[in-house]
Amino acid sequence: MLEKINSPQDLKQLPVTDLPALSNEVRQYIIDTLADHPGHLASSLGTVELTVALHYVFNTPDDKLIWDVGHQAYGHKILTGRRSQFSSIRTYGGLSGFPKMSESEYDAFGTGHSSTSISAALGMAMASKLQGDTTRQHIAVIGDGSMTGGEAFEALNNAGVSKSNVLVVLNDNGISIDKSVGGLSRYLVKIEASRRYNNIKNRIWERSGGDRRNTRSKNFFQRSLASVRSLLVPKSANLFEAFGFRYFGPIDGHDVENLVEVLSKLKEIKGPKLLHIVTKKGKGLKEAEKNPITYHAPGKFDAETGERITGSADGKPLRYQDVFGKTIVELAEKNPAIVGITPAMPTGCSLNIMMEQMPDRAFDVGIAEQHAVTFAAGLAAQGMVPFCNIYSSFMQRAYDQVVHDVALQALPVVICLDRAGLVGDDGSTHHGVFDLACLRPIPNLTICAPMDEHELRDMMFTAQLPGKGAVVIRYPRGASVHPDWQSEMKELPVGKGRILQEKEGSATAILSLGHIGNSALAAAEILRDEHKKEVDIYDMRFLKPLDYELIDHVVAHHSHIITLEDGVKSGGFGSAVLQYIEENHSEKNVKVTILGIPDRFIPHGSIQQLQKECGIDIPAIVASALD
Amino acid sequence: MLEKINSPQDLKQLPVTDLPALSNEVRQYIIDTLADHPGHLASSLGTVELTVALHYVFNTPDDKLIWDVGHQAYGHKILTGRRSQFSSIRTYGGLSGFPKMSESEYDAFGTGHSSTSISAALGMAMASKLQGDTTRQHIAVIGDGSMTGGEAFEALNNAGVSKSNVLVVLNDNGISIDKSVGGLSRYLVKIEASRRYNNIKNRIWERSGGDRRNTRSKNFFQRSLASVRSLLVPKSANLFEAFGFRYFGPIDGHDVENLVEVLSKLKEIKGPKLLHIVTKKGKGLKEAEKNPITYHAPGKFDAETGERITGSADGKPLRYQDVFGKTIVELAEKNPAIVGITPAMPTGCSLNIMMEQMPDRAFDVGIAEQHAVTFAAGLAAQGMVPFCNIYSSFMQRAYDQVVHDVALQALPVVICLDRAGLVGDDGSTHHGVFDLACLRPIPNLTICAPMDEHELRDMMFTAQLPGKGAVVIRYPRGASVHPDWQSEMKELPVGKGRILQEKEGSATAILSLGHIGNSALAAAEILRDEHKKEVDIYDMRFLKPLDYELIDHVVAHHSHIITLEDGVKSGGFGSAVLQYIEENHSEKNVKVTILGIPDRFIPHGSIQQLQKECGIDIPAIVASALD
Repeated sequence: MLEKINSPQDLKQLPVTDLPALSNEVRQYIIDTLADHPGHLASSLGTVELTVALHYVFNTPDDKLIWDVGHQAYGHKILTGRRSQFSSIRTYGGLSGFPKMSESEYDAFGTGHSSTSISAALGMAMASKLQGDTTRQHIAVIGDGSMTGGEAFEALNNAGVSKSNVLVVLNDNGISIDKSVGGLSRYLVKIEASRRYNNIKNRIWERSGGDRRNTRSKNFFQRSLASVRSLLVPKSANLFEAFGFRYFGPIDGHDVENLVEVLSKLKEIKGPKLLHIVTKKGKGLKEAEKNPITYHAPGKFDAETGERITGSADGKPLRYQDVFGKTIVELAEKNPAIVGITPAMPTGCSLNIMMEQMPDRAFDVGIAEQHAVTFAAGLAAQGMVPFCNIYSSFMQRAYDQVVHDVALQALPVVICLDRAGLVGDDGSTHHGVFDLACLRPIPNLTICAPMDEHELRDMMFTAQLPGKGAVVIRYPRGASVHPDWQSEMKELPVGKGRILQEKEGSATAILSLGHIGNSALAAAEILRDEHKKEVDIYDMRFLKPLDYELIDHVVAHHSHIITLEDGVKSGGFGSAVLQYIEENHSEKNVKVTILGIPDRFIPHGSIQQLQKECGIDIPAIVASALD
Repeated sequence: MLEKINSPQDLKQLPVTDLPALSNEVRQYIIDTLADHPGHLASSLGTVELTVALHYVFNTPDDKLIWDVGHQAYGHKILTGRRSQFSSIRTYGGLSGFPKMSESEYDAFGTGHSSTSISAALGMAMASKLQGDTTRQHIAVIGDGSMTGGEAFEALNNAGVSKSNVLVVLNDNGISIDKSVGGLSRYLVKIEASRRYNNIKNRIWERSGGDRRNTRSKNFFQRSLASVRSLLVPKSANLFEAFGFRYFGPIDGHDVENLVEVLSKLKEIKGPKLLHIVTKKGKGLKEAEKNPITYHAPGKFDAETGERITGSADGKPLRYQDVFGKTIVELAEKNPAIVGITPAMPTGCSLNIMMEQMPDRAFDVGIAEQHAVTFAAGLAAQGMVPFCNIYSSFMQRAYDQVVHDVALQALPVVICLDRAGLVGDDGSTHHGVFDLACLRPIPNLTICAPMDEHELRDMMFTAQLPGKGAVVIRYPRGASVHPDWQSEMKELPVGKGRILQEKEGSATAILSLGHIGNSALAAAEILRDEHKKEVDIYDMRFLKPLDYELIDHVVAHHSHIITLEDGVKSGGFGSAVLQYIEENHSEKNVKVTILGIPDRFIPHGSIQQLQKECGIDIPAIVASALD
């Protein structure tokens, strides 16, 4: 059937009884494609029936459908005219891994970061209302994990009193990327339990619905919406009702026919409403159901067995993530003040290692970047040394807390920015390219970036020593540099860079910050070997405080300085170097060239492709030095 | 009595029956002082009894007490050894208007921005737990307005499962600065109503307590905590219980003796708990009770009658705020797509004018900056032209939404940043000095700043025209420039500055952005009159796109360029000018001097004092031009 579905209009031609089979085809298509073309697997497997039902019932793209985070929207892409391109997902020039307005009219709102969908849906609903359109539907699909993000609550609070046509579908699978945590998650489990064990209600429900797949009783259809509602609402479910939503559920999110029925009825109910569905992340692929965390984005796997295809890691450098995870445990064993914090990314950032070994001292606080940072500040105010690990692009969510709670109070919080710089396949929403430029203006912060895993360990070691104040350490996703990560840790002098290579008479200097300094070294080799040109290379280590002494030295001995960073050029590391030189060496006519991310949003693709596009790959460095 | 209270230890010597009288003294002291020394009045009047009770019951500063936002903490300052300095509040070198760790050990955590207190208290509680201290108490006092901020919910979600000793006091007065809005607010009213009309419960409560002030029955004290709880909890109150908190209340927040009693009992209950108290903002000053919005920060007033002492506004320029408020209505009358959004600051930013005249098209979304911006993006995605007005320093809360929801999708949202630059008395938490530097790196944004109210109107007019994309307009708090604000609006060419004055042969140019350009003009006059030196002056208008053509012109004709901004020097406007010149005119040895906010947090004081401290006042500009 799937081959004939090129739009939701085609889907609507099918009888409802065909939808379970179609759902299976969609699911199999996702599995077969992702087996070879890695992407976000388990989330999309969990929402297949919901996706089919939503497009079957609602009039997309006229009705607005917003997928929170968006990595569960693969089925949506397949059913909305992008089936044939689906294998290009997350590759350079191919489909984005997230909904994207510029990609399809069916992507009503771009997502990537969590907890925005209700706000956006409410905005659209308000627009429809003002435009006199009372029939358009506005649907936000949001997971129980995303629901812990503060913005989702801000939106619930506002939507509840708005009388707008907003339907929130709460996709409750108990998992965000890692296991969902917090009061809300427990509360949802309680609701679900109360449904399971409330025999009387269940019996009424079952009796009236019968075996819903086959012998739906006429009566069921005839019952008024009001009574459906009273059957569905458990007593304890008024968290959402407290905000002014009408609450429905929980219902089985894999029963596509029932979903169609319930959604059709909800369509007729005006005002803000929430449908609570229970799904299984990874549904339909046994391995993924068993290990939804691993299969969130499993890489390549065998489509039949589900077994992951992983290359041998022998002799390869460890990922920075693993080095962080192992090193924080090593440090925490010696320093009892150290604690670890992650907003819902324990596996991604490897804090899970500490959570297993020191469960009392490592906290997953949920998708809650703002809280994570202020919580860390509170811990620091009472003598602890918190390492708060946040993906660089998600730190944007906690920008004010870094300013207001950490830096302003000069509290010793160590903020580790994982996935800094270009992240590759996840694309424009996830590149961690603004961090250097937006954090640099904040007083009291020490900001550094390791060039390899030994520097990462030294920076972590240094940051936890007394008197270091607030420290930001940013490092990229993926492999570090050396075959042996486990260096002996030593204190680094704060605000001091290091000379990587210097030759008598070289007129060009490259000043780099962080891992990308390895590209500078590689470029220097090419320059020497192929162009007989020597360049001097400096690993600045610290964006803040900047090593003025080293810059003085560089300015004294060079006529051309190239700065290199994997962050935006506007206001970042190179900009800081330039400002210092202008303020202190304006009499010396030294030319400064800033290499970094240009002033546009960078798409998805391999890091190599993207570095090339941005002019910060090795050939670009070589060219700049020759210029 | 108050004269003898120099610390909470002194307070604890009083019999509980003296506390009502003491509370009245504290209240009167606040009124008498603020009558002459303007500050945040109404909030602090509403929390007098709570403040007295908290310090009476808890062992501060060992127990940790955190005031959310903090403008309700004046009584706290008076009772914790700062009574005699109290009249210096919010003046240069004097007490801060907010709790500040560096000011007193009783200020357990600095605040200023909303909704951080539960996160910080939880962090401290977790620290105590890890340090083996099971008796220390950690108290967050948070208003019902602040409770709508997403971070507060992120913290509730995390705290509810933490088993930490956290007490949240929900100070429910139905007001943030303006009236509280949203589902939560309605919900709290419902709880309060259910208490009032639930006769049976009330009767039991009253009977056992009797007239609590005089004849407290012995039985009341003997009742177990559990039964107190069961009396206090109304059925509908499980929003907080859903998160795992034990909920108590609502109780009268002005009955200090009862507060002491209830807090004493709560002290014995382990784990996360929430006490809901109902207070009246402005309590004790009739005018303030009647008009808590006006009396949030009323300026000088008559201590007896409460009447405000306002100078005549005749002939004075309007405040930028009023010009914004009137202009958006003017524009919205002609352009039906325009809507206005404010996160809880309608009076402060003057969107209240539109809310009154066009209630359907102006939205107060609560203290919810993140939601405000994504909500605006949703509106824009459906063809509306939202003006989202946010104080510059609060925009830091929505940084990610500006990147991810507005700029990345190039949606036509107009973000008006009120209170940009130095704000004066509110001090370090509120200065809007990071906006230029942190927004500049974001692609797709147009960023501009008006030099006077006519430019503000022109920028607003231009921003709402089709095809302008996402536009940021930043302007300061306070008076604009001209006696007549109501200019005819015209479209400004995007990315184009203007020449304010040019003389043949002048070697120095001043490039300014925004209102501070008026200081450049004043400096030029002094330079001409007193130093016989001519400087050329350019109002750049746009930080982004920068007017490259104009800079080319300036570089061609000058050897010294001074840039002037009331934002941080690191990465801001001057930095952008410098980067452009280095990239395009490095052969020409033009000297660029950047005047702006230095790399440290700026305290509170008058704007004149602070500009002087930062080296951006008129004498500093003169000195720089002479240098």
